[in-house]
Amino acid sequence: MGDTETEQSEIVVEEDVGRVVEQVKELQEASSSLISRVAKDEQFLRQRALSLESSILKLRSSIDSLLCNNRLDPKLADKLEDELNRARCILVDGDASSFLPGKAPGRFLKMFIGPINVRATGKDVQLKVKEEYNRFKDRTAILFLLFPSTLLLLRSWIWNGCMPAFPVQLYQAWLLFLYTGLALRENILRVNGSDIRPWWIYHHYCAKLMALVSLTWEIKGPPNCVEKQRGVELFLQCAMMQGVAMLLQNRYQRQRLYTRIALGKAKRMDVVWGETAGVDGQLWMLCPILFILQGFEAYVGLLLLQTAIGGVVSEWQVIVCGILLVLMAVGNFANTVGTLMAKSRVKAKMKRGKSKQETD
Amino acid sequence: MGDTETEQSEIVVEEDVGRVVEQVKELQEASSSLISRVAKDEQFLRQRALSLESSILKLRSSIDSLLCNNRLDPKLADKLEDELNRARCILVDGDASSFLPGKAPGRFLKMFIGPINVRATGKDVQLKVKEEYNRFKDRTAILFLLFPSTLLLLRSWIWNGCMPAFPVQLYQAWLLFLYTGLALRENILRVNGSDIRPWWIYHHYCAKLMALVSLTWEIKGPPNCVEKQRGVELFLQCAMMQGVAMLLQNRYQRQRLYTRIALGKAKRMDVVWGETAGVDGQLWMLCPILFILQGFEAYVGLLLLQTAIGGVVSEWQVIVCGILLVLMAVGNFANTVGTLMAKSRVKAKMKRGKSKQETD
Repeated sequence: MGDTETEQSEIVVEEDVGRVVEQVKELQEASSSLISRVAKDEQFLRQRALSLESSILKLRSSIDSLLCNNRLDPKLADKLEDELNRARCILVDGDASSFLPGKAPGRFLKMFIGPINVRATGKDVQLKVKEEYNRFKDRTAILFLLFPSTLLLLRSWIWNGCMPAFPVQLYQAWLLFLYTGLALRENILRVNGSDIRPWWIYHHYCAKLMALVSLTWEIKGPPNCVEKQRGVELFLQCAMMQGVAMLLQNRYQRQRLYTRIALGKAKRMDVVWGETAGVDGQLWMLCPILFILQGFEAYVGLLLLQTAIGGVVSEWQVIVCGILLVLMAVGNFANTVGTLMAKSRVKAKMKRGKSKQETD
Repeated sequence: MGDTETEQSEIVVEEDVGRVVEQVKELQEASSSLISRVAKDEQFLRQRALSLESSILKLRSSIDSLLCNNRLDPKLADKLEDELNRARCILVDGDASSFLPGKAPGRFLKMFIGPINVRATGKDVQLKVKEEYNRFKDRTAILFLLFPSTLLLLRSWIWNGCMPAFPVQLYQAWLLFLYTGLALRENILRVNGSDIRPWWIYHHYCAKLMALVSLTWEIKGPPNCVEKQRGVELFLQCAMMQGVAMLLQNRYQRQRLYTRIALGKAKRMDVVWGETAGVDGQLWMLCPILFILQGFEAYVGLLLLQTAIGGVVSEWQVIVCGILLVLMAVGNFANTVGTLMAKSRVKAKMKRGKSKQETD
């Protein structure tokens, strides 16, 4: 009786194992075939998306040349351009955009996370990434303002003009983390098709380097604390102003972006970071604030250089931070002016087009 | 004549635009349908993979219980277990593994790169990530040895026992980058199904924190340079020893991993980082080296604490680094011992099984 039971259970378990082994093999085959089939389908869509993108470009230029040679009714040209714009919007903002080639991941990204693919498939996932980046910026902008202002307040109220090293270093370490996070996220957004201006990423590399350098900055020491901390004080004041600007810009540019998305003008992956990218009509109101900020940045940088060269604080960190600040101010200024000029060129062209249409 | 030409070109361009618009719409639809179809197929395979994984576990335990009740021939049980092991290998090491649920990305990863999906599809891509991680480790292990030893050599040959701050800080900044890169990569590997022990990732968080703290460490100053730099010297010596150990282990464990892959025992995504994970037979040879290292780590940590409490160097950085070193030594020791004990338990079980089989 025991033997038959043993035999029976042996047969059952052997059959079960055989079935599972078979099913695993089937699953393995199904997985391989799905992966290769998807790769082939994606390759096909990728080629299709690329060729359509170039077709749109070609048609645009041929409409322009026909218009120049008076072989196309201007009204019809407007209508056709509108249609092409709408088609391009569908192409770069819809699900098909997953198959348009993104920018290759940069060195910075590869250095930190290796060759992993960070391109999201499907517009909804890409938008989630974008949303999280905006939330990250909002969260940090508040800390960006609170952290240095608290330090400066405590300095005059409690610390009698001489800050202890630890809280300042904590702040600098936080800055280092913040800029690393921002630079990584912006690199990822670029891979996902956002056309964030490269300068704003470089700007964050500079800021990250400055945070790193400032960490090694001696905060207390001879000749006396107040003089020694002159550089740190300037640094914190500059950071505070930047915090205010970040808060204003985040709010303002996000609204602008949503408006532009609603108007179908912007791809939703566009990041409106930095001072000018994507700012349109109200740019002339924001500009004075931006230029004042950039001027202050350069002023602090030059003051740091003066302190270092004047011999009060002769550390290399002060010199490097000064140079970096001046560099960032100049870069920000150049990029703001560049955007303004590009915008006014576009406007001039539009005006020319209109007046020509009218005279015709 | 001009009018007919205009009309003709208008008709041609209008047709072209219409066609492109139509094609873009088609592409958009094809993209959406591909994305949703793939999502559905993947969901199906995911459920299948999960249910097969649990079937294998169930069959294993039922074989064990049948064996205990003497209702299964031990030889047959061995054969069936072998088959199940092979099936599990196919499941977790083949293309199907892309559809097994990986670990969710941890807080550290989210903090730095946001909610982007870093799970690779297809075993070949996952292996590329793994390979790059190994190369990264190899590259850095050499620098890990060269950097501190060069500093210590220059210190006694050229700098007369008193290092300038800059090269030391450069080294510390490099450590900070290195540990950030390692921790990010290991988190990504975990998401991709590697079963790296959590401790080795925590270990890198500790090391990263130590690098950050040591950056704020004052390297020159009163009372005198040599005494002041006693802590830095110990730190560098410790790093040098770790560099040697890393080089040895990288080489040794990689070979072990390849052997195990060949034997079909290990999943290829297993990372053999840290001191003991995945080390099998020659563990007893490597153990003394590991314990000596951990002892030295703890010794340096305690020495740092003593220097700080003894009042020679009273900075908080020295205390924190001391505590972190002791913590890492204890953690490493506990994990090494834990692995050894787990291994001996497995061996004892196997022996029991065999002797039982023989007495039967």
